[in-house]
Amino acid sequence: MADRFTALEVTDVRFPTSRELDGSDAMNADPDYSAAYVTVGTSAGETGHGFVFTIGRGTEVAVAAVRAVEPLVAGLDVEATLADLGGFWKRLVHESQLRWLGPEKGVMHMAIGAVVNAVWDLRAKRAGKPLWQLLADLSPREVVELIDFRYIADALTPDEALQILTDAEPGKAARQAQLLENGYPAYTTSAGWLGYSDAKVARLVREALADGFTHLKLKVGADIGDDARRCAMVRDLVGPEVLISVDANQRWDVAEAIENVARLAPSGLYWVEEPTSPDDVLGHGEIAKAVAPVRVATGEHVANRVIFKQLLSSQAIQVCQIDACRVAGVNENLAILLLAAKYGVPVCPHAGGVGLCEVVQHLSMFDFVAVTGTTDSRWIEYVDHLHEHFVDPVRLQRGRYLAPRLPGSSAEMRHESVQQYGYPYGPVWNAGPAIPKTQSNQPRPAVGHDLEERS
Amino acid sequence: MADRFTALEVTDVRFPTSRELDGSDAMNADPDYSAAYVTVGTSAGETGHGFVFTIGRGTEVAVAAVRAVEPLVAGLDVEATLADLGGFWKRLVHESQLRWLGPEKGVMHMAIGAVVNAVWDLRAKRAGKPLWQLLADLSPREVVELIDFRYIADALTPDEALQILTDAEPGKAARQAQLLENGYPAYTTSAGWLGYSDAKVARLVREALADGFTHLKLKVGADIGDDARRCAMVRDLVGPEVLISVDANQRWDVAEAIENVARLAPSGLYWVEEPTSPDDVLGHGEIAKAVAPVRVATGEHVANRVIFKQLLSSQAIQVCQIDACRVAGVNENLAILLLAAKYGVPVCPHAGGVGLCEVVQHLSMFDFVAVTGTTDSRWIEYVDHLHEHFVDPVRLQRGRYLAPRLPGSSAEMRHESVQQYGYPYGPVWNAGPAIPKTQSNQPRPAVGHDLEERS
Repeated sequence: MADRFTALEVTDVRFPTSRELDGSDAMNADPDYSAAYVTVGTSAGETGHGFVFTIGRGTEVAVAAVRAVEPLVAGLDVEATLADLGGFWKRLVHESQLRWLGPEKGVMHMAIGAVVNAVWDLRAKRAGKPLWQLLADLSPREVVELIDFRYIADALTPDEALQILTDAEPGKAARQAQLLENGYPAYTTSAGWLGYSDAKVARLVREALADGFTHLKLKVGADIGDDARRCAMVRDLVGPEVLISVDANQRWDVAEAIENVARLAPSGLYWVEEPTSPDDVLGHGEIAKAVAPVRVATGEHVANRVIFKQLLSSQAIQVCQIDACRVAGVNENLAILLLAAKYGVPVCPHAGGVGLCEVVQHLSMFDFVAVTGTTDSRWIEYVDHLHEHFVDPVRLQRGRYLAPRLPGSSAEMRHESVQQYGYPYGPVWNAGPAIPKTQSNQPRPAVGHDLEERS
Repeated sequence: MADRFTALEVTDVRFPTSRELDGSDAMNADPDYSAAYVTVGTSAGETGHGFVFTIGRGTEVAVAAVRAVEPLVAGLDVEATLADLGGFWKRLVHESQLRWLGPEKGVMHMAIGAVVNAVWDLRAKRAGKPLWQLLADLSPREVVELIDFRYIADALTPDEALQILTDAEPGKAARQAQLLENGYPAYTTSAGWLGYSDAKVARLVREALADGFTHLKLKVGADIGDDARRCAMVRDLVGPEVLISVDANQRWDVAEAIENVARLAPSGLYWVEEPTSPDDVLGHGEIAKAVAPVRVATGEHVANRVIFKQLLSSQAIQVCQIDACRVAGVNENLAILLLAAKYGVPVCPHAGGVGLCEVVQHLSMFDFVAVTGTTDSRWIEYVDHLHEHFVDPVRLQRGRYLAPRLPGSSAEMRHESVQQYGYPYGPVWNAGPAIPKTQSNQPRPAVGHDLEERS
């Protein structure tokens, strides 16, 4: 009997990160890093994992969205599906009634991304390769067939994509060896959360330098005076060589962003991230013109390849921040990597949260081996949180991500973690206080003492 | 004891419209017009109604999203909330954890819109006025306070909005009287669904002319040869004076759109609607330049005021099609009406589906009385479906919407309809076949005989 996909498993998993202000920024005062965690299974007993990353409340909506995708997956022939993941992507994204709920954006698109990523995880496990290597071993034509060019063909044709990939063929083996030996550069956000005291930031910055990081990111966007003071303090600590980027998490309007970046620029900024709404292509373009040579970065909340196409083709951003779990999974991120390559914009993925580092590293590594062939001006974000919940956690060494070697996409959570943090019935939630109900966008006052961070 | 909001009621209501191909277009082959239907209640026993409009599968996801909003509403003081609906809007839209699921787009944003609209319905009922009149009777300052200018202040400042509204103050009473006497112009889409045979289209076009319509819209986007034939046929039928617009429902890429509009243009097109992805601001701009004097229209799938801001400020669209149920309700649509006024782009709302005509008419009528002061080059879409399920259905006369006179926003469904069409337990769904599971974006072949339309 043919091997078929079985029902999806989807679990609401929430980590109470808000209790220590880990992850606090100008827009997200008290996130509880969470996931609608998806397991696809086959009648032969194989599994693949993916997730919608969320920050707490509303994870149950993402769970409902995954359930809505289930009838499109359960019962499909596994072999045929894995052999045509481009077709599988279209089957999910173009489903005519579900499409109305986006189109291609928000909860529905993220849920599709989780399912697509889970199927990729399964395919990589079945192939016995880490996802980055599975992708890098595909032929240029196979990669192009994974991509839906609808709405982007005016910026990138299938032939152009094929050419980019073909041009990168020479040297692939050497780059793969180089990656396995040296890893991929990272920058760290762990030192600069908005809810942390200056003393805690200073200590964490020193630790980051000792750990080998040469690029740090600070959260800004609450009070510009505080932001300027913190930037200056960190510049004093790190000296002139270390790169400092800042992240406003969409807190500003266009004019405000231009004004505020000017106030922070004397501390020497590499990029300003999410200066305003992720939907504002023209706004990013104006900001980019005004704040140069500070680069403008965005992407973690960019809904799909259509917005990325515009940001890239109009030079509105100088740093492209793909996210593993915002768009509709691996296939759409391949389209975005190729658009970025076409327009010469370095991809520096968004990561952190829970599991985002684990999954997105594969995409940057594929980009290095098989698309752009370089790691120059490229770093994967690193945040030192919650990696212990994954079966194949990221490994950092001297400020670089080591290439994953286990088969799959690294998305699989430890079973005990899913049980422990399952919401609302896991012991962590049964035992502790309910999710705080603060509605304010202001960060809560920093706690008066340094809490121990996770190791 | 203070009057407080009680728990939300939300019901999944689906109409099996796909059985007769009503509403069929190039992207939506077999919609079952549906709603996540919301009732807000107060401890004093008042109610207000709103809904997320959907086209079938996935309505349950919208229901879950409404449930996620409930804790932000239940228990609030009614009087204080109704006195500050600008604050209420921000409370819902800026909720920091739920915001991650958009931001401000997709299922979560639509669910917030349904709740916001339901509260407006309640406010209008309590005031004893139809919504359009309640809004028109607000002072310019009160209207401005309803609007969140975040992310749009670079295009429209609160002062500019105030000025637009203040400039429209003279003549308001006369326009209100005029509206009550003559209604507001409509155009009809009922004749041109893609699944209908040529004979059925021809008959419906003749009926539309007899009913007084002077502007018709045809669905295009499947086969351009068929589209050109149908456009020419309808032009022959209606003569040179009647306006014909076409709607491609996002089926084309940018270059395709330009090419295809050129093929249809000889039949004399007023606007081309949704030529491509609603997210493609720059693409719409290119199309608009290439197809002029044919106007480019979009909006029913535009996620929020940030995308509208760009479409309007960059002259990418010449017709602005607000939708009552896509953005976050009345407040956000006020922002969009004012942006359109600022850039001189006529607003011609998207309607149809189930209940969209009922609700959106109020916004156009407010626009006429209190914002632009004109109905020139403006029409509300009209589709002759499913009005019988509403307590205060739209009334058309000689191709014009008559102004609603009952208090509220006209969103309230008849109780028997909610019961009958409730999914999956209503008798309509228990009795009939399950929703067809076709995944194709191709319209199904038109049925070989004319089905009777609803009266």
